[in-house]
Amino acid sequence: MAIGKAGQRAIPFVENLGNLQLTHALLSVDYVIHYKIPSESRAEAEANFTELIEALTKVGLATEVRNGNDSSLLIFVKVASERYLATQIYRERVQDWLYGVRTTSPEKDVSKAFRDEPVTDAERLRLVYLLVTKPKNEGGAGITPKVGQWKHVASIFPLHNHAFNRQWIKQWSSKYVLDEKDLHQIRDKFGESVAFYFAFMQSYFSFLLVHAAFGFGTWIIVGQYSWLYAFGNSLWTIVFFEWWKKKEVDLAVQWGVRGVSRIQHPRTQFKWDHEAADPVTGEPVKVYSPTKRLKTQLLQIPFALACFLILGAVFLFCFSIEIFLSEVYNGPLKTYLVFTPTIILTGALPVLSTILGNFAEKLTDAENYRTNDAHHAALVQKLFFINFITSYIPLFLTAFVYMPFGNILVPYLDIFRITAEKFSSENAITTESFQINPDRLKKQTIYFTVTAQIVNLALELIVPYVKRQAFKEVEKVQSKITQKEANGKASIGDVPEEHAFLERVRNEAELDIYDVTTDYREMIVQFGYLSLFSVAWPLTPVSFLINNWVEMRSDAMKIAVSSQRPIPWRADSIGPWLNALGFLSWLGSIVSSAIVFLFNSDTHGPCGEPWNISAWGLLFSIFCAEQIFLGTQYAVRYILGQIDSPGLQKERAHRFSMRKQLLEESLGPEATERLVPPTVQYGEKITREALENEARRMSVSGAIGSPEHAFWQRQQGLDETVQVGRKLISQTASGNQTSKN
Amino acid sequence: MAIGKAGQRAIPFVENLGNLQLTHALLSVDYVIHYKIPSESRAEAEANFTELIEALTKVGLATEVRNGNDSSLLIFVKVASERYLATQIYRERVQDWLYGVRTTSPEKDVSKAFRDEPVTDAERLRLVYLLVTKPKNEGGAGITPKVGQWKHVASIFPLHNHAFNRQWIKQWSSKYVLDEKDLHQIRDKFGESVAFYFAFMQSYFSFLLVHAAFGFGTWIIVGQYSWLYAFGNSLWTIVFFEWWKKKEVDLAVQWGVRGVSRIQHPRTQFKWDHEAADPVTGEPVKVYSPTKRLKTQLLQIPFALACFLILGAVFLFCFSIEIFLSEVYNGPLKTYLVFTPTIILTGALPVLSTILGNFAEKLTDAENYRTNDAHHAALVQKLFFINFITSYIPLFLTAFVYMPFGNILVPYLDIFRITAEKFSSENAITTESFQINPDRLKKQTIYFTVTAQIVNLALELIVPYVKRQAFKEVEKVQSKITQKEANGKASIGDVPEEHAFLERVRNEAELDIYDVTTDYREMIVQFGYLSLFSVAWPLTPVSFLINNWVEMRSDAMKIAVSSQRPIPWRADSIGPWLNALGFLSWLGSIVSSAIVFLFNSDTHGPCGEPWNISAWGLLFSIFCAEQIFLGTQYAVRYILGQIDSPGLQKERAHRFSMRKQLLEESLGPEATERLVPPTVQYGEKITREALENEARRMSVSGAIGSPEHAFWQRQQGLDETVQVGRKLISQTASGNQTSKN
Repeated sequence: MAIGKAGQRAIPFVENLGNLQLTHALLSVDYVIHYKIPSESRAEAEANFTELIEALTKVGLATEVRNGNDSSLLIFVKVASERYLATQIYRERVQDWLYGVRTTSPEKDVSKAFRDEPVTDAERLRLVYLLVTKPKNEGGAGITPKVGQWKHVASIFPLHNHAFNRQWIKQWSSKYVLDEKDLHQIRDKFGESVAFYFAFMQSYFSFLLVHAAFGFGTWIIVGQYSWLYAFGNSLWTIVFFEWWKKKEVDLAVQWGVRGVSRIQHPRTQFKWDHEAADPVTGEPVKVYSPTKRLKTQLLQIPFALACFLILGAVFLFCFSIEIFLSEVYNGPLKTYLVFTPTIILTGALPVLSTILGNFAEKLTDAENYRTNDAHHAALVQKLFFINFITSYIPLFLTAFVYMPFGNILVPYLDIFRITAEKFSSENAITTESFQINPDRLKKQTIYFTVTAQIVNLALELIVPYVKRQAFKEVEKVQSKITQKEANGKASIGDVPEEHAFLERVRNEAELDIYDVTTDYREMIVQFGYLSLFSVAWPLTPVSFLINNWVEMRSDAMKIAVSSQRPIPWRADSIGPWLNALGFLSWLGSIVSSAIVFLFNSDTHGPCGEPWNISAWGLLFSIFCAEQIFLGTQYAVRYILGQIDSPGLQKERAHRFSMRKQLLEESLGPEATERLVPPTVQYGEKITREALENEARRMSVSGAIGSPEHAFWQRQQGLDETVQVGRKLISQTASGNQTSKN
Repeated sequence: MAIGKAGQRAIPFVENLGNLQLTHALLSVDYVIHYKIPSESRAEAEANFTELIEALTKVGLATEVRNGNDSSLLIFVKVASERYLATQIYRERVQDWLYGVRTTSPEKDVSKAFRDEPVTDAERLRLVYLLVTKPKNEGGAGITPKVGQWKHVASIFPLHNHAFNRQWIKQWSSKYVLDEKDLHQIRDKFGESVAFYFAFMQSYFSFLLVHAAFGFGTWIIVGQYSWLYAFGNSLWTIVFFEWWKKKEVDLAVQWGVRGVSRIQHPRTQFKWDHEAADPVTGEPVKVYSPTKRLKTQLLQIPFALACFLILGAVFLFCFSIEIFLSEVYNGPLKTYLVFTPTIILTGALPVLSTILGNFAEKLTDAENYRTNDAHHAALVQKLFFINFITSYIPLFLTAFVYMPFGNILVPYLDIFRITAEKFSSENAITTESFQINPDRLKKQTIYFTVTAQIVNLALELIVPYVKRQAFKEVEKVQSKITQKEANGKASIGDVPEEHAFLERVRNEAELDIYDVTTDYREMIVQFGYLSLFSVAWPLTPVSFLINNWVEMRSDAMKIAVSSQRPIPWRADSIGPWLNALGFLSWLGSIVSSAIVFLFNSDTHGPCGEPWNISAWGLLFSIFCAEQIFLGTQYAVRYILGQIDSPGLQKERAHRFSMRKQLLEESLGPEATERLVPPTVQYGEKITREALENEARRMSVSGAIGSPEHAFWQRQQGLDETVQVGRKLISQTASGNQTSKN
């Protein structure tokens, strides 16, 4: 039996890894496949496992199998032949060039190509992952975790490079600002997709520095609800959004991934109508009728309505109870009852969000996108909508329902009292007279921008840790039980020198899969608070500045410690979130101006004036704010457009020099030279050669003596033309003089 | 003397030209330089003329000189050596490729290149024009008409191809819709710049077909001022604008001029601060500080304000007088007095427009743009602003001042009565009681969209003709006088067989220079009426449909008959007008909705309700309309974005196949093949070769016996892995079973 053949030297693996820098060092393991052994149908599982190993071997991957935790196997995968991988990488680079992602074609000499552009960890891991997961007809092994035939494959993950991670976290926690080099490092290890997230965070953070100073200044000088802050805030969101759009392209160019979204990985679940030739490459592609898809997409409208109604109703209900309990109700148990809405929300919201989220996923599946990117973008859009409602509705209700209509609506809340009285036997419910609490919006904003952020951060860091610890404990207990019974589980079978390494891998197999979407979502929602409601509390950017410094490090920690190493996907943008950013920035101009109008005590006391005039003013402020927003956006875009991005410039220069080189290769160096002065001899009308050619041509076509020939032969050479011209001039001049006299 | 040498055969030139298709046929004349002989300083004129001929000869151009009309010379220019021109054209094509305008590099074999892509008239003429006008240090003769040293050069123009023009006009006047081929023909003869104008016209015309049907339908069913029409109209402008943006790119790709605006011709008048290397090509370029320019650009704000105030004041004044005279005043001479405002406007407007236009030009000069394109765009922007005010203010005044505030404001018009009474001795001025005329907006709209269009068209066609005829008469008389006195003018000296040809050229020399900007301006202003005010009269698109059918033909006539043949410039878009189009489309949503709200009798009787509620509703309609506009625009853009443009697709396919070919040339055909299945033999874990390599590598690095080696050697080959795995599975399974029991 293979496990028996133990190596002689028992080296403590993990410690030793500290000195090694590459993935290679992790015992050359490229990927680990976590295979859950089903508790039933042993024969089927064995057959399935055999197929798995065969599929992997077929595409040139070497495998080793070890015991995992909790009835699972760990299949270690590495590329059997480095040379084969090199060919794959080289082909990928060639393909990039074919699709216009790279500006320069890779070196002809393969070994020189790899010397000039060494293979990064991310590039290697991405290709191996594709090799494992691509469909068989495209040269992959077709292993798709959790789906169909491979439902027992729980996950496929690369191993963390602990040495790098440790150094990374250490470095980041001791510096204030990340530079290009740091981002480059992330890109090399975790791929452009993750690197873009951190680049975005870094840009956002830098911009927040300015905004925090501005916010703090206005808070001290003019206080809350000021037009000045609303304008500055809107301007800031515009500049940030437009600037990031440029920065994003620039980064994509620098990282050599611009347009990489065009090379898209097809979705395995895609159902097609027919095949057609790709108009660009001529390869057959699967086509699904876009009108059919459009019809499915139209379902988004009822879906959005449903989301809005369901979540809106829950919020409105809780909001009403809350107002009633906290500001009207004065009966028994008030101290406890005020928590009712919070309890309802805490209970209902996650459940509803999950249900609606699943529904969104189903809807997106039905829309049947061809590529993973399109599918993801469509899903993100829907999730953003749900998030938008859950995050901002409480504040909207306070700003636009509670404040202006509070006095009118609160009497209706008596329904709660009546209901309560019916159920309560004591009939001892008393109410206070209602007074609108003008600080409610500010308090809520502070809650969402400080308290909630801190709680979130804590949850993100602590919960996974606690979960992991608890899990381990449970497992230990379980294992002990199983050990006693089966006497042959997991680590027991390990060869001593592999033990530490395998334990580590078993730990990583239990970790969560890192999803950068979650982190983006958090940031975009935060940006929304800033853009929409920060006018209620100008210190919001200061709070976010501090929060994001920590957030960035904690996200790094999350990747390094509490998640499996992410698959290093490529990306050339923050993708669908960009639209969300633009939308929030636009909406911010409207909402901010409306809030300032309603709450600014200079304009008028809150709700002191009759409804219709107030409404006129409100509409007018909103309308003006929007026009100013659109105008400013146009201007900012224009001004930023004037500034050339270094990345794009570099790209153009690259393309130019590449074309020039190609031209020189094929046409000789003079082809691209500046125009040389013509070879006409001075004083001669036509070159001798040209004359001869002309004569030949004319004699062939019988054109000598033609009107054309006669016309052009009247003045032979420069001197004659000059003479004739001078004569004509002097004639005219003398003519003029005669007529004058 | 050269003129004496007459050819023997006296062929009637012009008639004969009917059979020849190319510019070559026009006696091979490429350009004619119209040189005005100054009446004073004969010696200087002679020296200047000599320099001109020398400069032309130096760059390889052959010249002939003849007498022109009215103390002028006609200098005929042709390229001396066709081969030299061919090199120039080939270089231009190579340059296009270098800058990414062409997707494919020109053929290496020059003669094959010209066979594959024959030189069009436009291409030839453009290059010869550049040869004549480019600065000397860039290899041109540096002849710039009317400027500096060459102030006596009145114009440089190519000769019309009468045969083609005749056929062109005949063809167009007998067909309803222009197709791609027609546009292609225009492009070949007059260059992309003119072709884009006609392409735009054609697209606009086709879209108007739909809109006219819709407008006619709504007019019959719901009449004027309907929400339905306002929405349909807005939707139409959005779809047209977004569609044209795509179409434009598509045409540019098809015509091989995409991105040609990047290869820009420097302005001769540009003043630079310093030179720097172009980041893309590395060539030295002249730089002017953008902040300095921005400072000058800020002057646009006071300029715009001034334009608005001056023109606005004139309009308001005339408008008030008009209202007073036509609807209040009832005294003597009313029939004549009502024309006062029209007379004032007709007198003052052109003068003011010209003054402001000149000012705009000066401002643009001061902004000091590096390229002709940038200069032109900046100028067009300012002219558009002036045009906007002059064209739409009367309608704005009627819709938003006269209608809602008429009752309030008209009493103030009594000032006119009082003034008039002071001056009049009779004291017999009577006034009617004022009644708002609800049809005024509609009547004005009809005036601007029908009457004014027809007048314009007539002016465009008839005025130049009359002007030309009158000119000719004057000249004939003048010539007769001069003839008698000087006895040696113009046509008198002609060789008989050249006479007809020279007379024709003399005629063309007197024609106007065709400026496509004027035609664009007319169309954009028209589009503005449609987008902003057509809701007042839904038959507007019908009127425009008819008008534009004629307009397109009359523009063709204008080019063919009453203008010099235009220099065939290239362009890749309708340029700065695109922004104007987008702006008008956006503004249209707001203005239309406001008009409908104010005038629609369903919403409320005109001005019957108190001001504040009306204003609230107005603002609300405008606000909603704008949101709907933005939303619809976003949706239309998204949907149109889903449709791939055939031109872009072709371009991508071109690029792809070009890269593929290059790759195959340099790497061999297998480089671009699909991934071949790996060379790992089935059942073997690692290829023999790979194993050997591995062994070699390991023995070199002393890695045999390393933990890595040990780890991967435990299970040698697929079979062992499978065996071990199966064993582990069965253990687990039995373990599970044991634990279950």
